[in-house]
Amino acid sequence: MWMDLFVDGSSRQTSARLFDQIRDAIVTGRLRARDRVPPSRALAVELGVARSTVAAVYARLLAEGFLDARVGDGTFVADGCPMSPAPARSSATGEAERRVDDVTDLVVRADLRTGSPEPGLFPLVDWRRCVTAAAAHRPPGYGDPAGVPALRRAIASWVSRSRGVIASPGQVLVTSGAQQAFDLIARTLLAPGDMVAIEDPGYPQARRAFERHGRIAVPVAVDHDGIDVTSIPHDVRAVYVTPSHQSPTGVTLSSARRRELLALAARQDMIVIEDDYDTEFRYVDRPIEPLRRLDQAGRVLYVGTFSKTLSPSIRLGFVIAESWMIDDLCATRSVVDAQPPHVTQAALAELIMRGAFDRHLRRARRVYRTRHELVARATQSLHEQGLVPAPWRSNAGLHSMLALDPSTATGPLVERLARRGVSVASTEEWSLEVVRPALLIGFALADIAQLGIAFDEITRALQRPRST
Amino acid sequence: MWMDLFVDGSSRQTSARLFDQIRDAIVTGRLRARDRVPPSRALAVELGVARSTVAAVYARLLAEGFLDARVGDGTFVADGCPMSPAPARSSATGEAERRVDDVTDLVVRADLRTGSPEPGLFPLVDWRRCVTAAAAHRPPGYGDPAGVPALRRAIASWVSRSRGVIASPGQVLVTSGAQQAFDLIARTLLAPGDMVAIEDPGYPQARRAFERHGRIAVPVAVDHDGIDVTSIPHDVRAVYVTPSHQSPTGVTLSSARRRELLALAARQDMIVIEDDYDTEFRYVDRPIEPLRRLDQAGRVLYVGTFSKTLSPSIRLGFVIAESWMIDDLCATRSVVDAQPPHVTQAALAELIMRGAFDRHLRRARRVYRTRHELVARATQSLHEQGLVPAPWRSNAGLHSMLALDPSTATGPLVERLARRGVSVASTEEWSLEVVRPALLIGFALADIAQLGIAFDEITRALQRPRST
Repeated sequence: MWMDLFVDGSSRQTSARLFDQIRDAIVTGRLRARDRVPPSRALAVELGVARSTVAAVYARLLAEGFLDARVGDGTFVADGCPMSPAPARSSATGEAERRVDDVTDLVVRADLRTGSPEPGLFPLVDWRRCVTAAAAHRPPGYGDPAGVPALRRAIASWVSRSRGVIASPGQVLVTSGAQQAFDLIARTLLAPGDMVAIEDPGYPQARRAFERHGRIAVPVAVDHDGIDVTSIPHDVRAVYVTPSHQSPTGVTLSSARRRELLALAARQDMIVIEDDYDTEFRYVDRPIEPLRRLDQAGRVLYVGTFSKTLSPSIRLGFVIAESWMIDDLCATRSVVDAQPPHVTQAALAELIMRGAFDRHLRRARRVYRTRHELVARATQSLHEQGLVPAPWRSNAGLHSMLALDPSTATGPLVERLARRGVSVASTEEWSLEVVRPALLIGFALADIAQLGIAFDEITRALQRPRST
Repeated sequence: MWMDLFVDGSSRQTSARLFDQIRDAIVTGRLRARDRVPPSRALAVELGVARSTVAAVYARLLAEGFLDARVGDGTFVADGCPMSPAPARSSATGEAERRVDDVTDLVVRADLRTGSPEPGLFPLVDWRRCVTAAAAHRPPGYGDPAGVPALRRAIASWVSRSRGVIASPGQVLVTSGAQQAFDLIARTLLAPGDMVAIEDPGYPQARRAFERHGRIAVPVAVDHDGIDVTSIPHDVRAVYVTPSHQSPTGVTLSSARRRELLALAARQDMIVIEDDYDTEFRYVDRPIEPLRRLDQAGRVLYVGTFSKTLSPSIRLGFVIAESWMIDDLCATRSVVDAQPPHVTQAALAELIMRGAFDRHLRRARRVYRTRHELVARATQSLHEQGLVPAPWRSNAGLHSMLALDPSTATGPLVERLARRGVSVASTEEWSLEVVRPALLIGFALADIAQLGIAFDEITRALQRPRST
């Protein structure tokens, strides 16, 4: 017996109960990261249910990030599970090995998952050239915890050119992705018990970085103009926002709201964490000034990442802020992990300075723009058919949010789509107090053909909501 | 005026007072990381003292890690200053730019500083080949927070072969150097207010990683057999030790003490953090079994680093522990910085699996062994001349500790040596309650010729302690 699972009733109930029990086992730590789950065939036999039922439950767990599957390597509990709290401290049990056959039995016809760029667009030749050049010299010893000087200069000059954010190299801290920026800011500029206003719905990994430090995340509702500034409690120490492409709704924080937010921050002595992710993939010509550019008081920490433009696996991002803040963040950094490796930093500096990064962005933007337009048209068509509410405006990024009728149960919908080979997540994990059923339509991993399949299936599922 | 400095009295007093005032300004945050200090000539004129006095003070600040200097780039406050606490939260002052001429006016004839390996030994050709191979494929997306599977396998197999530490790849967590291992362990396995026993004298950066999290570091004295296990308070939650080559004394933790420590840990439910740095450079043939190998109860976290064997700039280290601990550390890691970059991990896996890492270690060991022997002979000779107490046994590593007569004032000695071109630090920063004057003789950056110069100068300084 793999684990106790309780099933009875109709197949619809069975699948919901199975989903809940496995998810709960993951969230509570009964199943741990990288534990394998049994093949769907084996589990179906064990439980006396249809194999398709188990397969559908697995598909939904996969789409929502609880499970992970690799071809030929079976299906297992994902690392850093979305809703999983810090695993409880268990006693030393040694290694309980669960040997099961490795069978991945899900065929994905359309992969709408979000978080990574299209691997096929990665500028492999240029990157390899830059890495090889960077590895041609003996590596230095411990470097500056703020990052390699050439990369700090390259980022300062690139952000100034592309976003009008003026910074000296001394105001740039190179981080291991945006995630480390959130972590260092939480540890350094906030104290345990400090409150941070976050967007609701909002990016779960940023919230987790704050909460893991005992900082308190306070959800503030997002509307079509971005975070509702008037609802930000006056006693928060910091506000975390994604102004260019709100995660997940996709809206842009309006100019008026930006000015209100900065005025509030000045009045209440707050810092503002501006996570400007996805700004590189903007499909309209009227950019709105970044908060950091509008900021007269030096309260804004501007956070960027190369995970969405190049690859999460190079682990590089940055913070731009006042020099004293950068110094404070560096002091933490020096006892945390010292710095990112020299070779990736030097290679990225070279890629930017040679112009190869700009060329790559132009090329990638063309590809994503076409997909973005297809998603916008398909969403509009669903709306015109009366199947979904009015779409949220999204002018940028690698995903759009598909708002659903408020009565929609997203779990069964996601599951049904998964069974039809469409891997897509709902915004459930992004939501705290605001309940607004929606799907996250990622178009970085899915090309035009996959998006076509996906919208066919979505249309069919919304047209006949009760059939499974 | 650069900053208020108060001088009067004899030149000896002047230099001590200058040193203290500048150091205090750094420690208290009046001077910040990367602030430039004025050229010694300019400051000497300003203060009306001899230029050599200022130069000597700078030399000592440099040797003790408060200042940093690069040829053609001036002298400035070092990053992550040794004794500097987290900088106090200052108000946003903007960028106060201090423009001074960049003059580095110190000639280093012998560089005995510790912390980095000899850059000339770095296996550049093999490393470049491995990096180029790793960069030949499109990078994956977000990977496993525990590290790239090939590297986890390579580390498990290498540690098993070289140290008899048996681990499955699932028991290996790849970290950004040993420093991140300390940080993740402190955040994950210890709670705020938990006490950690540390060696006194002991490695300051490990202590800082614990203390930055509000964990309390409790100093425990070290003697010729390593940490005094009977003095470990019974209410600590963890013990941090450097058993192969105690930092800084260089002694090996004896077999008997190892068993006592594990018995104590079992009795009192403690974890043991075994920082096995420098074990790769062992110059005797009778290794003592690692704590992790002796450990029956799964309480030991075995920490290793490639900073001393390859280069700090590749930022790779590892933890080997029970799977449940690795899972817990990964859960923290996934919200901290996700993982190290793919390219450095894949390159290191290749370097190890190709055998190039082993070849490099054999070659490096030969070079360091010769230097180690020279230092041991020179130390013995100082002892036979009655200039220093009996030497501490050190059978490994990239530095030896030169114990001094208990009445020695190390500050003036370090300063005097710096003035003579010998850059060497005392163990002051390593010491908490135990006061035991000593110099740290690093032999990674200094070759045989430099070591000869250094011991000539040390002998001269100890023979005539009063002359400056």
